[in-house]
Amino acid sequence: GFAKVDHHRNKRQGFSEIVYGEGKEPEHIISIIQSLRNRNNQVLVTRVSKEKAEKIQEVCPEFIYNETARILYWKKWTEKQTDDNGYIAIICAGTSDLKVAEEAAVTAEVLGSEVRRIYDVGVAGIHRLFNHLEEIQNATVSVVIAGMEGALPSVVGGLVSHPVIAVPTSVGYGANFNGLSALLTMLNSCASGISVVNIDNGFGGGYNAVLINQL
Amino acid sequence: GFAKVDHHRNKRQGFSEIVYGEGKEPEHIISIIQSLRNRNNQVLVTRVSKEKAEKIQEVCPEFIYNETARILYWKKWTEKQTDDNGYIAIICAGTSDLKVAEEAAVTAEVLGSEVRRIYDVGVAGIHRLFNHLEEIQNATVSVVIAGMEGALPSVVGGLVSHPVIAVPTSVGYGANFNGLSALLTMLNSCASGISVVNIDNGFGGGYNAVLINQL
Amino acid sequence: GFAKVDHHRNKRQGFSEIVYGEGKEPEHIISIIQSLRNRNNQVLVTRVSKEKAEKIQEVCPEFIYNETARILYWKKWTEKQTDDNGYIAIICAGTSDLKVAEEAAVTAEVLGSEVRRIYDVGVAGIHRLFNHLEEIQNATVSVVIAGMEGALPSVVGGLVSHPVIAVPTSVGYGANFNGLSALLTMLNSCASGISVVNIDNGFGGGYNAVLINQL
Amino acid sequence: GFAKVDHHRNKRQGFSEIVYGEGKEPEHIISIIQSLRNRNNQVLVTRVSKEKAEKIQEVCPEFIYNETARILYWKKWTEKQTDDNGYIAIICAGTSDLKVAEEAAVTAEVLGSEVRRIYDVGVAGIHRLFNHLEEIQNATVSVVIAGMEGALPSVVGGLVSHPVIAVPTSVGYGANFNGLSALLTMLNSCASGISVVNIDNGFGGGYNAVLINQL
Amino acid sequence: GFAKVDHHRNKRQGFSEIVYGEGKEPEHIISIIQSLRNRNNQVLVTRVSKEKAEKIQEVCPEFIYNETARILYWKKWTEKQTDDNGYIAIICAGTSDLKVAEEAAVTAEVLGSEVRRIYDVGVAGIHRLFNHLEEIQNATVSVVIAGMEGALPSVVGGLVSHPVIAVPTSVGYGANFNGLSALLTMLNSCASGISVVNIDNGFGGGYNAVLINQL
Amino acid sequence: GFAKVDHHRNKRQGFSEIVYGEGKEPEHIISIIQSLRNRNNQVLVTRVSKEKAEKIQEVCPEFIYNETARILYWKKWTEKQTDDNGYIAIICAGTSDLKVAEEAAVTAEVLGSEVRRIYDVGVAGIHRLFNHLEEIQNATVSVVIAGMEGALPSVVGGLVSHPVIAVPTSVGYGANFNGLSALLTMLNSCASGISVVNIDNGFGGGYNAVLINQL
Amino acid sequence: GFAKVDHHRNKRQGFSEIVYGEGKEPEHIISIIQSLRNRNNQVLVTRVSKEKAEKIQEVCPEFIYNETARILYWKKWTEKQTDDNGYIAIICAGTSDLKVAEEAAVTAEVLGSEVRRIYDVGVAGIHRLFNHLEEIQNATVSVVIAGMEGALPSVVGGLVSHPVIAVPTSVGYGANFNGLSALLTMLNSCASGISVVNIDNGFGGGYNAVLINQL
Amino acid sequence: GFAKVDHHRNKRQGFSEIVYGEGKEPEHIISIIQSLRNRNNQVLVTRVSKEKAEKIQEVCPEFIYNETARILYWKKWTEKQTDDNGYIAIICAGTSDLKVAEEAAVTAEVLGSEVRRIYDVGVAGIHRLFNHLEEIQNATVSVVIAGMEGALPSVVGGLVSHPVIAVPTSVGYGANFNGLSALLTMLNSCASGISVVNIDNGFGGGYNAVLINQL
Ligand SMILES: Nc1ncnc2c1ncn2[C@@H]1O[C@H](COP(=O)(O)O)[C@@H](O)[C@H]1O
Ligand SMILES: Nc1ncnc2c1ncn2[C@@H]1O[C@H](COP(=O)(O)O)[C@@H](O)[C@H]1O
Ligand SMILES: Nc1ncnc2c1ncn2[C@@H]1O[C@H](COP(=O)(O)O)[C@@H](O)[C@H]1O
Ligand SMILES: Nc1ncnc2c1ncn2[C@@H]1O[C@H](COP(=O)(O)O)[C@@H](O)[C@H]1O
Ligand SMILES: [Mg+2]
Ligand SMILES: [Mg+2]
Ligand SMILES: [Mg+2]
Ligand SMILES: [Mg+2]
Ligand SMILES: [Mg+2]
Ligand SMILES: [Mg+2]
Ligand SMILES: [Mg+2]
Ligand SMILES: [Mg+2]
Repeated sequence: GFAKVDHHRNKRQGFSEIVYGEGKEPEHIISIIQSLRNRNNQVLVTRVSKEKAEKIQEVCPEFIYNETARILYWKKWTEKQTDDNGYIAIICAGTSDLKVAEEAAVTAEVLGSEVRRIYDVGVAGIHRLFNHLEEIQNATVSVVIAGMEGALPSVVGGLVSHPVIAVPTSVGYGANFNGLSALLTMLNSCASGISVVNIDNGFGGGYNAVLINQL
Repeated sequence: GFAKVDHHRNKRQGFSEIVYGEGKEPEHIISIIQSLRNRNNQVLVTRVSKEKAEKIQEVCPEFIYNETARILYWKKWTEKQTDDNGYIAIICAGTSDLKVAEEAAVTAEVLGSEVRRIYDVGVAGIHRLFNHLEEIQNATVSVVIAGMEGALPSVVGGLVSHPVIAVPTSVGYGANFNGLSALLTMLNSCASGISVVNIDNGFGGGYNAVLINQL
Repeated sequence: GFAKVDHHRNKRQGFSEIVYGEGKEPEHIISIIQSLRNRNNQVLVTRVSKEKAEKIQEVCPEFIYNETARILYWKKWTEKQTDDNGYIAIICAGTSDLKVAEEAAVTAEVLGSEVRRIYDVGVAGIHRLFNHLEEIQNATVSVVIAGMEGALPSVVGGLVSHPVIAVPTSVGYGANFNGLSALLTMLNSCASGISVVNIDNGFGGGYNAVLINQL
Repeated sequence: GFAKVDHHRNKRQGFSEIVYGEGKEPEHIISIIQSLRNRNNQVLVTRVSKEKAEKIQEVCPEFIYNETARILYWKKWTEKQTDDNGYIAIICAGTSDLKVAEEAAVTAEVLGSEVRRIYDVGVAGIHRLFNHLEEIQNATVSVVIAGMEGALPSVVGGLVSHPVIAVPTSVGYGANFNGLSALLTMLNSCASGISVVNIDNGFGGGYNAVLINQL
Repeated sequence: GFAKVDHHRNKRQGFSEIVYGEGKEPEHIISIIQSLRNRNNQVLVTRVSKEKAEKIQEVCPEFIYNETARILYWKKWTEKQTDDNGYIAIICAGTSDLKVAEEAAVTAEVLGSEVRRIYDVGVAGIHRLFNHLEEIQNATVSVVIAGMEGALPSVVGGLVSHPVIAVPTSVGYGANFNGLSALLTMLNSCASGISVVNIDNGFGGGYNAVLINQL
Repeated sequence: GFAKVDHHRNKRQGFSEIVYGEGKEPEHIISIIQSLRNRNNQVLVTRVSKEKAEKIQEVCPEFIYNETARILYWKKWTEKQTDDNGYIAIICAGTSDLKVAEEAAVTAEVLGSEVRRIYDVGVAGIHRLFNHLEEIQNATVSVVIAGMEGALPSVVGGLVSHPVIAVPTSVGYGANFNGLSALLTMLNSCASGISVVNIDNGFGGGYNAVLINQL
Repeated sequence: GFAKVDHHRNKRQGFSEIVYGEGKEPEHIISIIQSLRNRNNQVLVTRVSKEKAEKIQEVCPEFIYNETARILYWKKWTEKQTDDNGYIAIICAGTSDLKVAEEAAVTAEVLGSEVRRIYDVGVAGIHRLFNHLEEIQNATVSVVIAGMEGALPSVVGGLVSHPVIAVPTSVGYGANFNGLSALLTMLNSCASGISVVNIDNGFGGGYNAVLINQL
Repeated sequence: GFAKVDHHRNKRQGFSEIVYGEGKEPEHIISIIQSLRNRNNQVLVTRVSKEKAEKIQEVCPEFIYNETARILYWKKWTEKQTDDNGYIAIICAGTSDLKVAEEAAVTAEVLGSEVRRIYDVGVAGIHRLFNHLEEIQNATVSVVIAGMEGALPSVVGGLVSHPVIAVPTSVGYGANFNGLSALLTMLNSCASGISVVNIDNGFGGGYNAVLINQL
């Protein structure tokens, strides 16, 4: 009644509708994901709290919950789980950005891409980034996550020849304005080849990267 | 003296440094592009007014000026000018978004990608978009440009399986706040697979699309 | 003492004063609605939490509480409860907008209009909207509720010839800024025939629609 | 080429596409309105400067220009020019709001509604409004235009039983923030039955009122 | 140690330092008010929660707490408690503005002015205001408190010949932005003779009125 | 026709309607001020450019123009031009605030109060303020004008026992945001007895001070 | 794994990496500070709640916790703990700014500078500041902390010949916007020699002062 | 009359009052600087346009004008013009930031410090910065100027052990919001040792650096 699941989406877009878990009752989520599981190869629910996940898993025990990423998912076993189109570099500035970074990484992995994690390499100690330069430059696409001043995507964007998806986080305080600072930094980057998703939208970063890595 | 042209960029990033023409004196631009022309296959200057372009062309007559796109460029003749990786769909909502759309299109063409223009197909008369659905769905990547409420990328994003680069424009008035409205719309899109560049940044839209189309 | 109930409003405006329940003590609400009930055909209190409603119902058991809509109301039984001026289409983008949609719907029904609910038809899967096109086009007026990027009213506005009342919701995160994004989208709509009420103001959407449907 | 005129709109929405004149070249406008004139009963171009209007009238002398409203229009002569559904009250707060008020009034008249103008009745001298109370209360719908603090729609909204379309203007200075102040006032009105259009959007006010007056 | 009480203030400004209770520990407040009580005729602490007040009253039982106003005060008994300079009208728009109105009223009374309360007379039912016109017009100064769209001070300002102190409140939701809407309304009032204090600053409203009423 | 001059205002408010000159045509102003002059003791038009003033003076040579204050006024000669209720101190921070300060001063003088000007005494060299302390403390009311950080009213407010009207100006650049910085400073002042008018509203500062000085 | 401690920082910057405690798990902090303690003379963790500090101290009992400053630190005993380059004046406006002031003071002391605290000397009672003028003028550098309108740094900046680091705090309400008001005030100061750090960033104020005091 | 030059400032602050040239008439500036020249070793006027400078130089030919910096100054010849406390590194991101950088550099030089200019070394091509690392690390203090995303101060701040003064510029467009983006970036920097001045305030950057370099 209340929900019109978009079953046609897999055909139109390559993946089933991703469920936004925030503000949905467990029973609603259960009814949606059961319906999705019957017709797709993977089902992804984002922004699920631990308590909610456990309630859902009681009914749907085949679903796996990743607590850091706050993602609940199920994936059909298939011989080949991962495309072989190179890999996605997921780079984050500080350890406080971990949750958003993992939301990106788990999304990408569940949707079938290979991921390399390069964490805690923010610009305040930039040599840490250079230690991983080759691994970053060889990726097909980078997802760069940063809070506070959000400068890392600009630096990465100036060092690689592939597309960079920048994800601002709400980490910070004061004139950070819940991530506005990092968001504006990334939109105004003077490095070319950077595009931006919403504050804390790790999912969006991972999803965009998969679309590019699949090409 | 005053400028340190980044000649290493071509090697690091695949294209030479793109010159941001706004607020630079013609003589400065001339000295920079002469230096770039000697070492690269193409040279691109964005945000150049007609008057400035004409002054530069007096000294550098091999440069071509596109007035709508406000781009001044030069391209080495090579047998093969365009990659054969499919094409970029450049889609805009209204005829007032033309300048930004052309900035994206000309950027992409000069950097070697094939472009298809699908203009004036905004959501207020959505059947116009559906008339071009197949051409859009077959692209490798779409650049979607819109001002005012900026809703078009969400609709396109829900219809294709490739990445969408959304470009908000400053077209509008009042609570549009010079493009803020369209920018926020695009950042909050509930369609997956959309990433966003700065307001009026047609160049960024085109450049990102080329990086993706080249893969 | 503290409150001056506007008993003249029914005469001036066609309906009794609607009570804004937020931040009012149960006893205050009780004294206001008892006074209103004596002189009007219906009494409506918006933004009432479940706990508060229950306290009030102990004293005023003839009042009905709708939990999703957070509305407490009483309606005099009359032979004809509903005008026969056509119906109001209440359309919402996602299942998270349900509460605001129901605030609109219940308001309209209590004030005597017929309502048709068309929920979860957001632009990311736009065919869902087209499945209901005829029902929407035949309405006297539409109330269109959407959060996140708030693009749905623009699309509906381009498809109908009646007035559209757009209601932005605070559903979303990050650059949504608690509904600002959807609000700006709706104010800047390039479809004609759209007017806007406050963020999460389902009541306002429903009330305006009733005024129009009654004509 | 560049423009896809939405000829289907009259059928879908009751009126032909309204042309937004801002930022369009005279030749573009000429080609669009000639094409529209062949298939519709009236053609309306908003936000046209005097100079632009004169250039267009040289080619299209049958078009009439209203300088205060900045509207250029043409209307097919028909026996009955105006519906007989009552009238629209167009009410403005100060003489500085005249342009926006006239944009609303002319729009409504060209689209076939009767209009009554009640101007310069702002809240600083509220008796001026009461002098016109009966005329206002007898309207089918009011369009209330105000700049600075934008309080007038709240007062009118509390005195009538029909829908009020509120139009904020950018008249003012300082903390007015180009109309933001009036816009927020109107969105937060505690009078019921008010909905709002964009800052300075007289056209939107008039158009919405016509849709309602036609019912 | 940590605090430098400004004992000179009474001499310089006519009243002792008013203590801002928010965020101060009960012991800190106790030590400050004991020190102030020894040298002044009245002591006022604003923004004190009920719990905090009770803790302080255990040590300072001569202090009185007004819960609605959240003010804790002490006043030396003197034969004449109140100046005879006329009275202050304290006017508020809705019952939700009660707390701020009482903060203004209690402040004014403790500092020695006579106060008349005229509450719940907002512009949505403007006849309620006119019922009290004479009492308002005969005041020396008015303090007008309103949330949501904050239109009441403009209306009052146009009806009186004395100064109006406008106090915006944070009552409202959505595009109210915690009182920003009412604040901007009041700053942009086109009625002359209105000046404004901070959002929810009932204290400031009362204090300014006392300074004027004393003249 | 277009304007409804509020001739009743003098009776209601003590002064005739003040004309806001911005955006009004010279002929409109002429017709309004001729009508006002016949029934009042003084007529004041604010925000009039030099050119406009000269055009009006051709028809109304009895009007005087003050260029710094941008005020055009006429005053009936009467034996006693000024009340004897003490004086208004008009204090400004820097020489760039001169125009706004003079708008306040001229307004107050034309409306019949005595004014003392204390200019260029901003907080960066605070001894300059202390040089005038006695003259300031003896005023009935102060109008304090400041741009940039707008700190001066707080300092003055802490030194006097009379009301302070604070006027923020738009003098400054960058994070001044056209006067927002000074406005917020003044609204948040921790000195008591300060109320605020709109950015650059010298007229409002002067008018409020006159109302107080007259008491 | 998850963290790349920047052990090289001491060499590059003179001090070890300062750990930002907010949002880090106790175990993470423990592993980081144990690793830092082995190679540095002092270790500093900011923004640590009391509970978190106690959990960490169970494992690392040599660490000291300052509750007001919310700082956890360890310092190697060395004969000379403090440089002899003069002292830092830490000045705050009100007692509510205490926490931020102490964060600055403790940071500076742990990093080896001498500190003089001058608290509760805000502009509303400016004589309190002048009582300490000599001590302030003799410092090498001042850190000035203020909330609400944040005017104190401007006044201090006009009285000294050394650099002033201004720290806005989030103390206040309403149009304070969580410290934005004080931040803008400080950025727009017309006293020369003032630079600003983030809202509530006492740590930044202290750290910058140490760098200057060491010279 | 209108101006109170702060002749005491040199004594209190080490330098004479710096004149803010914006919005001052040439004659005003002439009278102020003549008065300052008699009692100080150097006189500095900021934000002077070329036309204004030429008018002043006609009367005061001993004053020198630097067009890029928009500074007009005079300096008494003394045997030793420059302190020998090391040097200030002035670092800017792009050639468009030149004007602000030169305002900083000229300010510092006129006030007696040695300056090293390191321009056009923004993060998009970060190797350019590393080419100058030693020269930067050996400075006493750095002034780092950047527009657009303003990331450069964070990178520099992570590489040096001296204080960094960050100057955001208004260079950019769209979501740059006239320098807001760069300002927020710098305030939120996660490198320690960075403090910030107003957008485009090159003067403030230079002045603060001199105060530090003099120590
Ligand atoms: N949910 C709501 N949103 C906005 N306005 C409302 C709402 N509910 C009631 N109102 C209006 O708020 C006004 C003030 O209400 P009260 O505070 O109850 O005196 C009423 O007259 C209603 O018109
Ligand atoms: N400079 C000013 N700033 C703010 N309000 C003004 C100013 N000058 C006049 N006013 C007010 O603006 C109102 C509207 O003016 P008008 O547009 O002339 O009808 C008048 O009633 C005055 O009270
Ligand atoms: N209270 C604070 N405010 C701002 N920055 C800080 C604070 N405490 C530490 N930092 C900086 O934040 C950086 C990132 O910290 P981390 O997240 O611990 O890797 C550190 O290198 C410090 O320079
Ligand atoms: N470019 C500038 N930016 C910011 N402040 C300045 C600038 N130039 C001068 N100032 C300061 O502005 C203050 C006020 O200047 P004035 O308006 O000349 O009295 C002076 O005391 C200077 O400290
Ligand atoms: Mg780290
Ligand atoms: Mg079109
Ligand atoms: Mg859905
Ligand atoms: Mg008028
Ligand atoms: Mg009420
Ligand atoms: Mg000065
Ligand atoms: Mg204190
Ligand atoms: Mg460059």
